[in-house]
Amino acid sequence: MSAKPFLAISNRIRSTPFTSRVMNMGASAFTVYNHMLLPTEFESLEADYWHLCEHVQVWDVGVERQVSLKGPDAQKLLQWMTPRDISNVQVGRCVYVPLADEKGCLVNDPVALKLAEDHWWLSIADSDVLLWAKGLAVGANFDVELHEPNVWPLAVQGPKAEQLMQRIFGESVSDIKFFRFEHREYQGHLFIVARSGWSKQGGFEIYVDNAEHGVQLFDELFDRGAEFNVRPGCPNLIERLESGLLSYGNDMTINDTPLEAGLGSFFNLSENTKALSMPALLKQQEQGLRKKLIGLLIDAPEGATPLAENPVVSAESDNKYFPISVVGSQAWSPRYRMQMATVMLDAPFCNQASVEVQLVDGRTVDAKIQSIPFDFTGLPQYQPMS
Amino acid sequence: MSAKPFLAISNRIRSTPFTSRVMNMGASAFTVYNHMLLPTEFESLEADYWHLCEHVQVWDVGVERQVSLKGPDAQKLLQWMTPRDISNVQVGRCVYVPLADEKGCLVNDPVALKLAEDHWWLSIADSDVLLWAKGLAVGANFDVELHEPNVWPLAVQGPKAEQLMQRIFGESVSDIKFFRFEHREYQGHLFIVARSGWSKQGGFEIYVDNAEHGVQLFDELFDRGAEFNVRPGCPNLIERLESGLLSYGNDMTINDTPLEAGLGSFFNLSENTKALSMPALLKQQEQGLRKKLIGLLIDAPEGATPLAENPVVSAESDNKYFPISVVGSQAWSPRYRMQMATVMLDAPFCNQASVEVQLVDGRTVDAKIQSIPFDFTGLPQYQPMS
Repeated sequence: MSAKPFLAISNRIRSTPFTSRVMNMGASAFTVYNHMLLPTEFESLEADYWHLCEHVQVWDVGVERQVSLKGPDAQKLLQWMTPRDISNVQVGRCVYVPLADEKGCLVNDPVALKLAEDHWWLSIADSDVLLWAKGLAVGANFDVELHEPNVWPLAVQGPKAEQLMQRIFGESVSDIKFFRFEHREYQGHLFIVARSGWSKQGGFEIYVDNAEHGVQLFDELFDRGAEFNVRPGCPNLIERLESGLLSYGNDMTINDTPLEAGLGSFFNLSENTKALSMPALLKQQEQGLRKKLIGLLIDAPEGATPLAENPVVSAESDNKYFPISVVGSQAWSPRYRMQMATVMLDAPFCNQASVEVQLVDGRTVDAKIQSIPFDFTGLPQYQPMS
Repeated sequence: MSAKPFLAISNRIRSTPFTSRVMNMGASAFTVYNHMLLPTEFESLEADYWHLCEHVQVWDVGVERQVSLKGPDAQKLLQWMTPRDISNVQVGRCVYVPLADEKGCLVNDPVALKLAEDHWWLSIADSDVLLWAKGLAVGANFDVELHEPNVWPLAVQGPKAEQLMQRIFGESVSDIKFFRFEHREYQGHLFIVARSGWSKQGGFEIYVDNAEHGVQLFDELFDRGAEFNVRPGCPNLIERLESGLLSYGNDMTINDTPLEAGLGSFFNLSENTKALSMPALLKQQEQGLRKKLIGLLIDAPEGATPLAENPVVSAESDNKYFPISVVGSQAWSPRYRMQMATVMLDAPFCNQASVEVQLVDGRTVDAKIQSIPFDFTGLPQYQPMS
């Protein structure tokens, strides 16, 4: 983690209906995501991590803004935006759709919810997808209504998430399958509830579309959750790196394609898929990738290795080291006692066994190259130090 | 000002070449703007204000990202994006261009630099204009190359800005007229230098397109500026409100049109201007505005009135108060000892003499309605309390 200056708040940095509660509950740091406040830490990154893996947390992820595409051309527009074939997606499904521009470069990587045959929501990462969609639709004269509805998702994550959700919505909440959503009632209000979330600890996301009912729900999640040791939480850098979940803007940007980011497994390239990125991606596949997102593991049994702020990654040739990239994300895994990092590397270096990564004192340390998600097989697993 | 939590920094929140210097020089708070770090305060909002009005400051405004439009259809695309007629703008001019969508709603309000007949830079406020422009260009099949170049503007602002700039670039820097730009050499590198900046204290913006030369320049501005009492600074909330400069995201958003935001004086509505917002704006003009951005002044001779965090604005009817809006921006003017605020009000209330604004303790206080920029004529002017 880097230095933490103070964050000046103004109306431009929007709050969610839960922000004041989350602040009172001890959120110690925030980031700005889609022009909104997102908590990043409560007790500590490591304490939050262990708690998430053992109990249940309620996350204010209202920053996951929805972009609503509605109308006769809604699906046609979404298909133009993503190289993933969505023609067979059923209503009620969630689907991960990397969005890419005419050069094949990533614009965002939302989860799309198919609400009706002519209605989609994109639950977006940090970029103004609405503006891109509006430009495409107006430019190409598509018949689709685009807007950002007042929806602030709450995530309930962790191994005890299901029990807590049953207390609120009844046992039928368990009928919701992974990456599907259904409507569930709470206090007379119907919420969209999906089995999804930005962790691999299991759980749900509740699409709160009414602030008053949402705040009631938020409070009840904590009241009912006491028996499960519920705590407020947020997407956790350690957990998401251990789980191989990528963050747009950190691990990959608009300068990278979905293929370079290793997202090719989510879709088949096909000329039949009418995506505006398809010609560029097919060409890239044919020519081969010039760079790839890979993982780095550094043995650090005694605690977080103090990497530099934007650690330079170097390779060796003739006993000389030369810089080849800069780390994307990094965190220390207290479970495996390894430093984890991601980096976009030129293809020739991806087949090496290791590279050098810069420490805060200027020295370098050896880092093993891995694919993402990391393979921790065979490594000893540690427990929280008490 | 509101509460200040810590800001968690990750690669997604980009630095400028000057960020580490600005931190070391005492920036005490930052905001996030165009996915980048923008300092908001050094000594204090008020101390920074008085210094800016009396001396000279160097601002790291690298967050003013440039969107480059280049190619045969560059000007056609920009004209489609803004209701302001740009057909007669000459190369070398800066021009304020509110950008509006097909509903007439504000997407951003950049300053555009005409670099060549087929090349524009948009120096943008906080939204992903590049994505909107890409969508429009791809959708409508325009022949234009769009990208975000590596440019990080530095602003030199304040009454002594011109003297300092002469020390660096020579006396000919004074030949640059207001809202024009020219190339000026420093250490063998040509910089674009404009007489512009987000204050009314006079000064320049230097479009740094090379980090190494930029850092050299930054350091020399402080070395040479010692005799002018130079300090690091940033856009100052007090100064910009006193000067009537609006902030996209705070004072007006994508829910407002340029006419509602009072920006109509920057352009003439005309069917001949091929802007995609023109039909909607002409219709709005014909039907009359339903809401308007106005200024509020509250007598507060003893110091900043503690307004609520998102102060509710109320109007009276039959001795009852009912909420009519929420304040956009607010600051206390130490010069006029008035609390200044902006608010988007439904038209019928704009002709009232005053409204009520909520204080942090729940009470309300009377606020005089004014147009923006504020009219301080006849008010006593105070000096800094020493």
